[in-house]
Amino acid sequence: MGLRRGAAGGGRELIELICLDADDTLWSHESYFQDAARRYHALLAPFAETTDSEQRLAQVGERNLQLYGYGVKAFTLSMLETALEIAGDALPAPTVREILGLGRELMRHPIEPLPGVKEALPALAQHGRLVLVTKGDLFHQESKLAASGLGDHFAGVEIVSEKTPEVYARVFARYGAAPAEAVMVGNSLRSDVWPALAAGAWAVHIPSEYEWARERAEAPADEPRFATLGGFAQLPGWLARLG
Amino acid sequence: MGLRRGAAGGGRELIELICLDADDTLWSHESYFQDAARRYHALLAPFAETTDSEQRLAQVGERNLQLYGYGVKAFTLSMLETALEIAGDALPAPTVREILGLGRELMRHPIEPLPGVKEALPALAQHGRLVLVTKGDLFHQESKLAASGLGDHFAGVEIVSEKTPEVYARVFARYGAAPAEAVMVGNSLRSDVWPALAAGAWAVHIPSEYEWARERAEAPADEPRFATLGGFAQLPGWLARLG
Repeated sequence: MGLRRGAAGGGRELIELICLDADDTLWSHESYFQDAARRYHALLAPFAETTDSEQRLAQVGERNLQLYGYGVKAFTLSMLETALEIAGDALPAPTVREILGLGRELMRHPIEPLPGVKEALPALAQHGRLVLVTKGDLFHQESKLAASGLGDHFAGVEIVSEKTPEVYARVFARYGAAPAEAVMVGNSLRSDVWPALAAGAWAVHIPSEYEWARERAEAPADEPRFATLGGFAQLPGWLARLG
Repeated sequence: MGLRRGAAGGGRELIELICLDADDTLWSHESYFQDAARRYHALLAPFAETTDSEQRLAQVGERNLQLYGYGVKAFTLSMLETALEIAGDALPAPTVREILGLGRELMRHPIEPLPGVKEALPALAQHGRLVLVTKGDLFHQESKLAASGLGDHFAGVEIVSEKTPEVYARVFARYGAAPAEAVMVGNSLRSDVWPALAAGAWAVHIPSEYEWARERAEAPADEPRFATLGGFAQLPGWLARLG
């Protein structure tokens, strides 16, 4: 039994449900998005300054979250809408074709587990059941899990439309775990850490090299159920120290 | 205890889990798709005969199922890809804008429960737990359920990427029901009836006025666990007769 467990003031925190984010926690994703965005802004260079088209794309994407939700298909539709706003009726068909192509490439980008993930998952599975909890598009996330070769380690996959405390509470209940017996692990303080803590669970932040601006948030201070780790490989050790 | 229950040869078939398809079972959907498709082919009339663009759109849509899955966003991207194939570099930007608009409209089409649905759901909920089981886009289906005002009747929502016997078996297990205690109700013989029967459950077909060509299939013959009903309003009576 480690210090953290004592700090939380009880003996019931033994974690038995390990919830893992997918994109940029298990495999790279945001870097492909940023690469696609760079190529997109280059395509629109004849019509707008890059800073301008970046701002417009961010605005359209934010506005469309209510309509399309998250994921590559939503992003592709927002890229097209922004291009029409920027270039107007002068938008050439070949540019439309290239934007569709950027989206298709994103749907199929290579799924390569991040360093330490493949080695850590079997050790984690000995601590508790593993559940993938991710926003975005069901079809695409299932395809990516299949392509990752990691699917066998998971007791379940939960695709959610938003990561709120209520959604986390439902996921924990679905797997018969009390919040204090569950941990959420991910690269986003906003989506993975804060709402999981609010639901009464533990939360581990593993920052990723690439971050979606929208997911930025402050890290919790003085929160015994929270930890930041330098990489996925440190997760089994952290759990072992918890007890 | 009714005739059907006796016909199935046992006393354990009492249904306690009622799985319901969403689009064109609880509310209209395909008619909006077909209307959007009609307007789409009219937009492409300067470039191709309607029968030709219909065929191309069906081909592209089928090809893209592997990439995009089901749903309005996938359909919108396929409409754009088909338009580029048909019109080539002559595709005008305003046509691209109109196609995006058709997709946006489909994302927000009115959600109006089909006749008998609102009245039947409370009666069904007395028979067993109700679970929505539907293909398509998580974000969009959750939005539609919220817009329908029917959400309170449901014990759960299961968005699946395909409706296979294995997927149905997982859903039944998730709600603690044996297949013989579960029924799947929907408008598609291919997706709602055949795989549910194969999983060992009961299945009810409620044909809808509009049918997606891809979902067509033969009806089961001599299958005691299968019924075709003329409308959703007949479902509580059918369940009551089962016992």
